[in-house]
Amino acid sequence: MTGKTSSAGRRSDTRVSRNIKLTLEYEGTNYHGWQTQAGSGQATVQETLEKAFATLAHGPVKVHGSSRTDAGVHALAYVCNVVTDSPIPPAAWAPALNHILPEDIRVLSSGEAAPDFHARFSAIGKIYSYRILNRRAPSALHRHAAWHVNLRLNMRAMRSAAEHLIGRHDFSAFRAAGCSASSPVRTLKAVIIRKSADMIEIRLEADSFLQYMVRNITGTLVEVGLGRFQPGDVKQMLLSCDRRTAGRTAPAHGLYLVRVLYTE
Amino acid sequence: MTGKTSSAGRRSDTRVSRNIKLTLEYEGTNYHGWQTQAGSGQATVQETLEKAFATLAHGPVKVHGSSRTDAGVHALAYVCNVVTDSPIPPAAWAPALNHILPEDIRVLSSGEAAPDFHARFSAIGKIYSYRILNRRAPSALHRHAAWHVNLRLNMRAMRSAAEHLIGRHDFSAFRAAGCSASSPVRTLKAVIIRKSADMIEIRLEADSFLQYMVRNITGTLVEVGLGRFQPGDVKQMLLSCDRRTAGRTAPAHGLYLVRVLYTE
Repeated sequence: MTGKTSSAGRRSDTRVSRNIKLTLEYEGTNYHGWQTQAGSGQATVQETLEKAFATLAHGPVKVHGSSRTDAGVHALAYVCNVVTDSPIPPAAWAPALNHILPEDIRVLSSGEAAPDFHARFSAIGKIYSYRILNRRAPSALHRHAAWHVNLRLNMRAMRSAAEHLIGRHDFSAFRAAGCSASSPVRTLKAVIIRKSADMIEIRLEADSFLQYMVRNITGTLVEVGLGRFQPGDVKQMLLSCDRRTAGRTAPAHGLYLVRVLYTE
Repeated sequence: MTGKTSSAGRRSDTRVSRNIKLTLEYEGTNYHGWQTQAGSGQATVQETLEKAFATLAHGPVKVHGSSRTDAGVHALAYVCNVVTDSPIPPAAWAPALNHILPEDIRVLSSGEAAPDFHARFSAIGKIYSYRILNRRAPSALHRHAAWHVNLRLNMRAMRSAAEHLIGRHDFSAFRAAGCSASSPVRTLKAVIIRKSADMIEIRLEADSFLQYMVRNITGTLVEVGLGRFQPGDVKQMLLSCDRRTAGRTAPAHGLYLVRVLYTE
């Protein structure tokens, strides 16, 4: 598959390296998150995708992800990129990969990106969504798709609390103990809380997120909704920069990476 | 647990038989439908529920279902009933059963029904919903929850076609070959076709449904939406009473039993 091709002058004896951008939808239930951890022995989305890619590219590849999603977290449009000299046309990667990937990972689209595009470092923002099933009865159909909260949540209090979080802040109070980000400062651009029938969606947009930031904010907002905190307490939590002042961590299975934002 | 009780005069040396009505939500993916077939060796919802019930009631029970859902079909509010002399209070069955049932079957509620209530024979109507994901890309998250149709569907044509089906008709053209119902005549009270983002929902209400009736109607409406049939062709299919004139059978995994209607 190497060698001369007559189709383009720029190809001669060498393969042409291309930067392929992929957009994925995945159900995180059966994966230990996006990122491969050496020796963990548990399947990750990255590892599963790299194996499928390597099968098609006839050699090892490195897939660059946009986000380390936690174990059990889902994605509606996860972006990653791969530099490869495979002759497979950029748009053909999506159907080819879907042919060999497990059904809980689907490639929605594939295409060629600029040589300097990097799924993580080129991102200027991300949108996450958290789903809460707020009703008495547990659910069979949403058991991996939404957090079941069986006591009635006060939507007005949750929305009022969320207002305090919007803007550029030190989010140390909502950060995981093991978070490796160099700065705890992030700009939370929007928090939208919607309810449709029994399903509550909390949608957050930020320049980027700290580890567990969405799950810690969600857990805290739920405790506000239950009356355990007042909306104004959330402002004090932010100012304290102390994780111990904020609420619990919402479970992973209600969380979705919705979109990764790029300038292009 | 038998014997004298002092709480009610009507109890003496015998147990009191109660008719317990249960409402279930289930994901049908891992079940060979509702109804147990002797010797099939495949798990059914009925069999799974009867085992759980028997564990709590300390003896065999017969669960009466409202509908034979097909393999892979889901339910949002399936109704069934059980006559038992167990002393477990009617409302306590739901949490007790959820404790031992697999997570893809949840009991939403339980309560005492009139002695002559029968989940199937007392039903006066049913509502089913069929979900179609209408977009180019396949989905990881909806793979067991909606039929993926990757060509654009003409909603107006589908709605126009559905109009012909409403009313009291011989639905032989939309009936499975093996359907055991004595009459092919049913009253289809409503067909509502809605679209939200890429998800189309077809909701049907009838006095009762023939085997595969919803899936055959849906498959036919999708073929209308693709332009393979004209809306008026559906009227001719009905009049023909011939299954071969109508469209394909939509797959089971997009179908949901939404509600069972009773006079009470």
